[in-house]
Amino acid sequence: KMTPAEVAVNPAGGEMSLLGHSGTQSSHRLLAYSDALISIIATVMILPVAHTKMENNEELRESVQLLLTTKIAVYLMTFLIVTVAWAAHIRWVIIISSILLSVLFQACMMLITFLPYTFSLMATFPEHILGILLFCGCVMVMGVIQSVIVLYAFSRPFLLNEQIQISENQTYYKHHILKVIMRVPIMCFFASIFSFIFFQLSYVLLAIVIFLPYISRSLKWCRNKAIGQVEETPDSMLFYTYLPNEPLSKDRVEAFSDGVYAIVATLLILDICEDNVPDPTVVQKQFGGSLIAALQVYGPEYLAYFGSFATVGLLWFVHHSLFLHVTKTTRFMGLLNTFSLAFVGGLPLAYQLTHEFPHNSRNELEAIQISCVIIFFAGIFQLAIWVVALYNEQESLHPYVRYGGREHIFMLAKLSLYPCVALGTFFLTCILSKFTLLRLVFCPDRPDHRVIVEEGDDETRVPFNALVT
Amino acid sequence: KMTPAEVAVNPAGGEMSLLGHSGTQSSHRLLAYSDALISIIATVMILPVAHTKMENNEELRESVQLLLTTKIAVYLMTFLIVTVAWAAHIRWVIIISSILLSVLFQACMMLITFLPYTFSLMATFPEHILGILLFCGCVMVMGVIQSVIVLYAFSRPFLLNEQIQISENQTYYKHHILKVIMRVPIMCFFASIFSFIFFQLSYVLLAIVIFLPYISRSLKWCRNKAIGQVEETPDSMLFYTYLPNEPLSKDRVEAFSDGVYAIVATLLILDICEDNVPDPTVVQKQFGGSLIAALQVYGPEYLAYFGSFATVGLLWFVHHSLFLHVTKTTRFMGLLNTFSLAFVGGLPLAYQLTHEFPHNSRNELEAIQISCVIIFFAGIFQLAIWVVALYNEQESLHPYVRYGGREHIFMLAKLSLYPCVALGTFFLTCILSKFTLLRLVFCPDRPDHRVIVEEGDDETRVPFNALVT
Repeated sequence: KMTPAEVAVNPAGGEMSLLGHSGTQSSHRLLAYSDALISIIATVMILPVAHTKMENNEELRESVQLLLTTKIAVYLMTFLIVTVAWAAHIRWVIIISSILLSVLFQACMMLITFLPYTFSLMATFPEHILGILLFCGCVMVMGVIQSVIVLYAFSRPFLLNEQIQISENQTYYKHHILKVIMRVPIMCFFASIFSFIFFQLSYVLLAIVIFLPYISRSLKWCRNKAIGQVEETPDSMLFYTYLPNEPLSKDRVEAFSDGVYAIVATLLILDICEDNVPDPTVVQKQFGGSLIAALQVYGPEYLAYFGSFATVGLLWFVHHSLFLHVTKTTRFMGLLNTFSLAFVGGLPLAYQLTHEFPHNSRNELEAIQISCVIIFFAGIFQLAIWVVALYNEQESLHPYVRYGGREHIFMLAKLSLYPCVALGTFFLTCILSKFTLLRLVFCPDRPDHRVIVEEGDDETRVPFNALVT
Repeated sequence: KMTPAEVAVNPAGGEMSLLGHSGTQSSHRLLAYSDALISIIATVMILPVAHTKMENNEELRESVQLLLTTKIAVYLMTFLIVTVAWAAHIRWVIIISSILLSVLFQACMMLITFLPYTFSLMATFPEHILGILLFCGCVMVMGVIQSVIVLYAFSRPFLLNEQIQISENQTYYKHHILKVIMRVPIMCFFASIFSFIFFQLSYVLLAIVIFLPYISRSLKWCRNKAIGQVEETPDSMLFYTYLPNEPLSKDRVEAFSDGVYAIVATLLILDICEDNVPDPTVVQKQFGGSLIAALQVYGPEYLAYFGSFATVGLLWFVHHSLFLHVTKTTRFMGLLNTFSLAFVGGLPLAYQLTHEFPHNSRNELEAIQISCVIIFFAGIFQLAIWVVALYNEQESLHPYVRYGGREHIFMLAKLSLYPCVALGTFFLTCILSKFTLLRLVFCPDRPDHRVIVEEGDDETRVPFNALVT
């Protein structure tokens, strides 16, 4: 299997490069484009969640339950299905160099970017079957397009991955790949039929689709254990096995994660630019023309912005140190990474919540608690990646961070720092919220002070991190 | 100079890779993260422009002039300054591997993402000096941080680029790099001082900052021509010369462009998901519970979405075919590419405008004209890149597309297709708008029909493109 790094070696070499490698070079850039597109579409769907208007009067917990649940569901479904599409994409095996394939591939990308809209419809009208039908239609069309690409490529073997090109049983590969590609569209076909009869079942089927590879793999494992017979696929057949330890290109996992972190960091400033520029007439009337006085109103928001940017930056840094010492990425680690990223993508929501309720009593504490939960899970899944890597440390970890390695304990400290701090803050706010009514009577301005302390935590972590390595 | 492609070769090799190359590997990923961040922040600032509410009643031309000019100025300034930061970034020469450097680098990134907000302040309050002061403050702090990084790296030579590491006159390099880095902050320092005296002058200074490298280079050229004396810098000193033919890493230009195209394609679906999901109560009341009837209202918007996605995809495809045949990228080509991308970034605005005025008389024609202008310039700058490459075809183009090459004429056709179609549509609408009043009297529904024709253009181009290669 050719990793992007290997492909990237080829270009720009001068005279000889184009003829031999223009195919892979062209294909490599199409992959980079689709990687960027997929990481953006996965993350950007948090915006509708974050832009949900909260009412200051009602309890946050209730408004969250009522208003946000559907939108958060849309976000999580989008994130999962899009990363499944990213991991299972046809491009692993086919070199897309002709114009026809390129256009078909872009049509697939267009359908993928359309999926979030079908989720929105499903979430807003859960009892309407139109959303399900649209989703299933998109997936089925994608399945057909991908099959056409595969059949076309196998009829012109120079379009195939080198490993398949030199292999003898190409027909076996073709059938295996087609089977894997058509599995999901066929599930969707049944889901769309069931939607006319009993639409709840369709949702169950769609949920199964996301975890299909893992379910089918564990079913097979159980059957083999029960019968005692071990059925082995050819060793070179490492595409689409969905074994938890199937290798996944480390470079591509890193590139995808970088995209997600970068977007999350950028979404924050977008909100600042859209919402926190005061109106000139308001400045003239309410603040007597003093722009500085008008901007002081937004003080907590700037603070929240810098705090959130620092949080994203430091989470990225932990991720980066972890992957610097990981030598082999497996599919299971990729799944854990996806979960971690899904929570990182939730950070703009946390940012929105913490500055939405600056001086309020309980809402604000609960907003901080939600932020803590998001940061905790983002960190704990990073830690889980490391734990999984430790189980097979000879293969997947650098000697420095193995048991007894000279940086083992530092790495553990780095990875557990965020979850611990988030957990600590969470319980602190739980205790504080018990005294909320008492505090409200005696010192009503206290909560605002505490936001600053919480944001300050992010900054104080920097020197500690610097001390760690 | 080590290109990212060369750096990318190192990782994931197994046991031996980490010790020798962990520095470059770590640095490479930081660069990828900052590339993603910069391409996103440059593009995403089109959202406040596109989200500007238009009034259907007033004339589009006036509302554009009144409402949008400032926001478009903010967008363009952000795009230019951020790409300048991207191209002139310190990371070309220093391997950022220690935690301290990483934190400093991320602080720089945070300040870069904060710049759009200062632009927003400048555009909203042009006569207030606060925006200028904030901008200059950010740039000066960035200058100080970058100088600290450079001084730190030169005190530990293993952190330097290989080419400088083996060079003998490191002190010369250090002074040259520091001079280049501090040039912009010093300009900003003067701009902030002038802002207290005569703030218009500050804006002129800031405008000069963006084009500073090119201005200083052409001044030097003029001086040399006048005196007749040719002053040569050492040949290896190819960093930061800002010569128009200074090479620029082709991979990084491609990665940056991919990021911009991917975001533009994704912003469209974000708008669809946020605005075009009908409210359940509205569906119940106005459409008698029929979701399909409710969604038919959004018909033109879906069409505009697919049309815009196809436009972005095809522009990306043209860009991709062009860069596939370009073997060497220069700084001047990078500048033209930036201009092209700035117009591509304007496409969400075009999308917003074309579906904003579906059945109106003149507004809608003018919206189409604006779209044509945006597409025209996006395409014409791509063509310009090719023309520049042709001037030095031996070095920068593959034999196939040189004069007389077997794909020369096809490439010309591909590149000139979009500008020609846009220009044609523009003049067509100019002619049509003269008959607007006449048409309004006789057939008031005609304009809506024409939108579909205009969008249809995008689709009809696909087979033609397919025919070309």
